Amino acid sequence: MELWFNEKQTEAFGISVRVKETLVTEKTEYQDLAIVDTYEFGRMLTLDGMVMTTIKDEFTYHEMMAHPILASHPNPRHVLIVGGGDGGVVREVLKHPKVEKVVHVEIDSKVIEYSKKYLPEIAVGLSDPRVEVIVGDGFMHIHENKNKYDVVMVDSTEPIGPAVPLFERGFFQGIYEALKEDGMFVAQTDNPWFKSDLIRKVNRDIKEIFPITRLYTANVPTYPSGLWAFQIGSKKHDPLAVELDIDFLNKMETKYYSPAIHKACFVLPKFVEELVK
Amino acid sequence: MELWFNEKQTEAFGISVRVKETLVTEKTEYQDLAIVDTYEFGRMLTLDGMVMTTIKDEFTYHEMMAHPILASHPNPRHVLIVGGGDGGVVREVLKHPKVEKVVHVEIDSKVIEYSKKYLPEIAVGLSDPRVEVIVGDGFMHIHENKNKYDVVMVDSTEPIGPAVPLFERGFFQGIYEALKEDGMFVAQTDNPWFKSDLIRKVNRDIKEIFPITRLYTANVPTYPSGLWAFQIGSKKHDPLAVELDIDFLNKMETKYYSPAIHKACFVLPKFVEELVK
Repeated sequence: MELWFNEKQTEAFGISVRVKETLVTEKTEYQDLAIVDTYEFGRMLTLDGMVMTTIKDEFTYHEMMAHPILASHPNPRHVLIVGGGDGGVVREVLKHPKVEKVVHVEIDSKVIEYSKKYLPEIAVGLSDPRVEVIVGDGFMHIHENKNKYDVVMVDSTEPIGPAVPLFERGFFQGIYEALKEDGMFVAQTDNPWFKSDLIRKVNRDIKEIFPITRLYTANVPTYPSGLWAFQIGSKKHDPLAVELDIDFLNKMETKYYSPAIHKACFVLPKFVEELVK
Repeated sequence: MELWFNEKQTEAFGISVRVKETLVTEKTEYQDLAIVDTYEFGRMLTLDGMVMTTIKDEFTYHEMMAHPILASHPNPRHVLIVGGGDGGVVREVLKHPKVEKVVHVEIDSKVIEYSKKYLPEIAVGLSDPRVEVIVGDGFMHIHENKNKYDVVMVDSTEPIGPAVPLFERGFFQGIYEALKEDGMFVAQTDNPWFKSDLIRKVNRDIKEIFPITRLYTANVPTYPSGLWAFQIGSKKHDPLAVELDIDFLNKMETKYYSPAIHKACFVLPKFVEELVK
């Protein structure tokens, strides 16, 4: 028997991944969670039938969520990560020695539990002493904390189910207030081919709140279209104008990000540039 | 009834595209050809079951095959295109006023015929007076012409079926000889995620023949992994060192390529950089 996982990335476009073994399928309090072992990508985490991460390609998303913004902030001591219970972004954040404390707020404890068990390469950072893991609502956490964080990262699922509030204007306003006076935040905002309206909306919202906004992209082969968008909002530091610590960044162990990629990832194909004009 | 086109992009990874209507399916002398109308991508050409181009995303591949190299050559008067019978690359090449003549060698006349009929937006350039269409073998054409072309573009299918010889060292040597003393060529070389060996091999071959080699990438959502690689071999002009005609390039109508993308597309993710070190 051949077992294939199918994800409809849009109503009329999908991907199929051949499965070796099903490790977990569970209906948690928030979503359908599955971890399967696949032939092409190794172990793979899915939520509500959508690929979240795989062992083969996880590095691009996690590195590209963490490094462009951390390399742009001169002193990112206190970092908040909302979502991303697999721990991949945490692992990357911890590569920056200036980071003293990471608060990681994930709504679904099962994502953390099963990632630790079945995706230890990704979840490795979750047990680091600098990391405080809070099982709770990121939206609430943002609104309960003012002037606290240097950097906020929103590693959400697509705006379906528990992630819906994380794409609302009020959430971005809350992030602005949770950040210190030179704080910055980044959120994944899906892809320009099938979700151009979402990218436009988030960009517009963030432009109204933050003086500096930047969109950049990275290639994630298991995500729709392979071209993933990340949106930065910043109070003071501009990722395109800051002087990068090239020596440190060149030494940092990565497989996708580099100081040259830092500059290049903000250069958008013309049709993407149009979305954020 | 729901009709879906499925392509196994690797043995264990595939895409599915929902089909509205089947326009052509034909076993030509060289390959299985189909053109279908799809919900997500509009009309779509497939050869031997692999997506070649779609109305929605064709611009990225065609622009990114044509413009980085033409913008890098000071006087690309005489251009040869091998393959690409749909005419998309021809259309883009004709945007450069310095191009006086395009020789287009496609092995399968049926690709040309059906593209003209069903994909007129793409095939539009094929009837331009500057274009000479030759139905024939690109491999032979290269070996029969010496010191003739300023620019050669290889718009082949994957190295399966009729395209196999187009990835061999002898073909690249032939291109070197078919080029004038400051000639340049570009070939698509598949993707770094699933075809790293091919990219390594082609890059090694071309490095042995041409003094200047450059790899760049572009996002094509209907191609495996969404990250597509293009390899340049050049006798004299370096796409990263030439002075671009920014005024002209800014005015040129494109949806993906821009002078800024020209610089950025050569910046490779670290794991891709490793393949061509």
